[in-house]
Amino acid sequence: MRGAWMRREIFEQPETVARLIDRETTRAFRLGAELRRRQVRFALLAARGTSDHAATVGKYLFGCRLGVAAGLAAPSIVTLYKSRLKLQGALVIGISQSGRSPDIVEVLRQARRSGALTLALTNDASSPLAAAARHTLPLHAGPERSVAATKTFTAQLAGLYLLAAGWQGGRGGEELLAKLREVPEELVDALGLDEDIAARMGHNLALERCVVIGRGFAYPVALETALKLKEAAGAFAEGASAADFLHGPIGMAKRQAGKSFRAILLLSRGPGLPTTRRVARRLRDAGVPLLEFGPPPVPDELSPFPLAVWGQLAAYHLALAKKRDPDQPEGLRKVTKTK
Amino acid sequence: MRGAWMRREIFEQPETVARLIDRETTRAFRLGAELRRRQVRFALLAARGTSDHAATVGKYLFGCRLGVAAGLAAPSIVTLYKSRLKLQGALVIGISQSGRSPDIVEVLRQARRSGALTLALTNDASSPLAAAARHTLPLHAGPERSVAATKTFTAQLAGLYLLAAGWQGGRGGEELLAKLREVPEELVDALGLDEDIAARMGHNLALERCVVIGRGFAYPVALETALKLKEAAGAFAEGASAADFLHGPIGMAKRQAGKSFRAILLLSRGPGLPTTRRVARRLRDAGVPLLEFGPPPVPDELSPFPLAVWGQLAAYHLALAKKRDPDQPEGLRKVTKTK
Repeated sequence: MRGAWMRREIFEQPETVARLIDRETTRAFRLGAELRRRQVRFALLAARGTSDHAATVGKYLFGCRLGVAAGLAAPSIVTLYKSRLKLQGALVIGISQSGRSPDIVEVLRQARRSGALTLALTNDASSPLAAAARHTLPLHAGPERSVAATKTFTAQLAGLYLLAAGWQGGRGGEELLAKLREVPEELVDALGLDEDIAARMGHNLALERCVVIGRGFAYPVALETALKLKEAAGAFAEGASAADFLHGPIGMAKRQAGKSFRAILLLSRGPGLPTTRRVARRLRDAGVPLLEFGPPPVPDELSPFPLAVWGQLAAYHLALAKKRDPDQPEGLRKVTKTK
Repeated sequence: MRGAWMRREIFEQPETVARLIDRETTRAFRLGAELRRRQVRFALLAARGTSDHAATVGKYLFGCRLGVAAGLAAPSIVTLYKSRLKLQGALVIGISQSGRSPDIVEVLRQARRSGALTLALTNDASSPLAAAARHTLPLHAGPERSVAATKTFTAQLAGLYLLAAGWQGGRGGEELLAKLREVPEELVDALGLDEDIAARMGHNLALERCVVIGRGFAYPVALETALKLKEAAGAFAEGASAADFLHGPIGMAKRQAGKSFRAILLLSRGPGLPTTRRVARRLRDAGVPLLEFGPPPVPDELSPFPLAVWGQLAAYHLALAKKRDPDQPEGLRKVTKTK
């Protein structure tokens, strides 16, 4: 059956998130206490592809919850240009499903040498990434067979949220942990839209090009959904921030409006909602067919979980509607090997 | 004449960069000395659209030249989510052509309150952004009339390179300054390809969709070139890192290969060149028509200047070939007003 692996892994997500919370809360809170003690004020997140989108959610979470500025590493600064970043006192997190991306391993190794507190977020606690980092938060997501990563993404998110809860500590940390404990159930609800999304993508099987738009916590999920649409369905999809999209790209969307072009909007019940709705109105006026997902009935801060699941299902069902196999996309390998 | 403003401003670039170096070297070196004295180890760059792509070049430059980790701000963390980032001891640079983007102004205001050293890079030294920041590096690029920013981008780059030279100081700083002084002449040479690029885009006027690919210092220019192609020519263009493109998106490119799809490769004489060439080979094998620009005869570190000019000319000439007016794109306003 086409896409059997991808489907199975999408549906494993409530369980993988629950398992991670169950097994790693203590470790995450211990690590969080160390981050507080050391007064870490800056985090650098090193990742590629799907993991980079999880890292971007982390950037919003650390900024909004903890007031900690976080940046995404450009691995080539270390691997190609051989620069040694001054990272003393910073937290550097390497995120990789396999723990075998050579460039992410190298960034962590260098960061540790330069005095950063290093953390590996990976499925494989015996991987080179885990060996390079001082701390490891194992994701327990189990082997991922589908080329398009799904359960890895939500497990990485859960790891970052656990860490943020531990880092915040006190009542705020407990409150975030309580919210996180609701996520597995919320993911079950999100998966309940499976048939609905199958029908919608069936009606939109002409989709070959699209923009995926979100704002705030929904923005990194727009990037991730665009990548799933590329990987699983072969569509030319670009993720964009609603704020940026109002300038420049909206003119492009008007030009591109046609039978194979769509705009997908990811909505969340947060302060970014009005901007995204404004973009939706302008696109509708321009004759661009819209597909809206959300807002899900969860706090804005937790919206990346259900929105990610809907994006995965959209990519999966679009591939099936097009009679493409999401488990056998062209030109893809599982482990990212870039140096 | 269609695109008269855009063309004029593209051709002003050697002069604007020369003027900026001429007028602001002293100030940039004084500011750089202060950054050294304060041992600033982390920079946050706040910008949108074109300015965000200049900021991304800055991230590579600060990392490679100075070993300083730099991150791009997500303005909504401050403006929508009302978070107060702990930025004491950090450098926060706001980059905005007009100096009137409300969200960038707000990020700088908050950063200054939280104890960051703040710097405005703007054309208008009497703008709200300049008022919000402790220091201003005026860009002297003159009024920009074209909606698609061109001379603003290279002026912002020149401002960031001047600052990096001053920050590095000593022999290294003088060496970078000497390289920067070559840039106006190199831009004249780059503009010499005007007719050649006009002819190439004329042969590719079917282009309606494309990926623009670069690595290392060429990567942010790929993002900027994609934006120019969207804004000026209405093409659906996405910028991508060659490293990321080998995984996932390359399968999409195979699916999309067809008469209106192209891949544009930005090449530079640096350590990222082999990866970009590898992507080029894989795309060619997949039947995707390629357009290559570069490598320019300049040091890799300075390649963003000529590559940016070629990207601008490509977007401008594609628009003309399509009989679209790059000065009057649909749905665009000049000042970014997102809150």
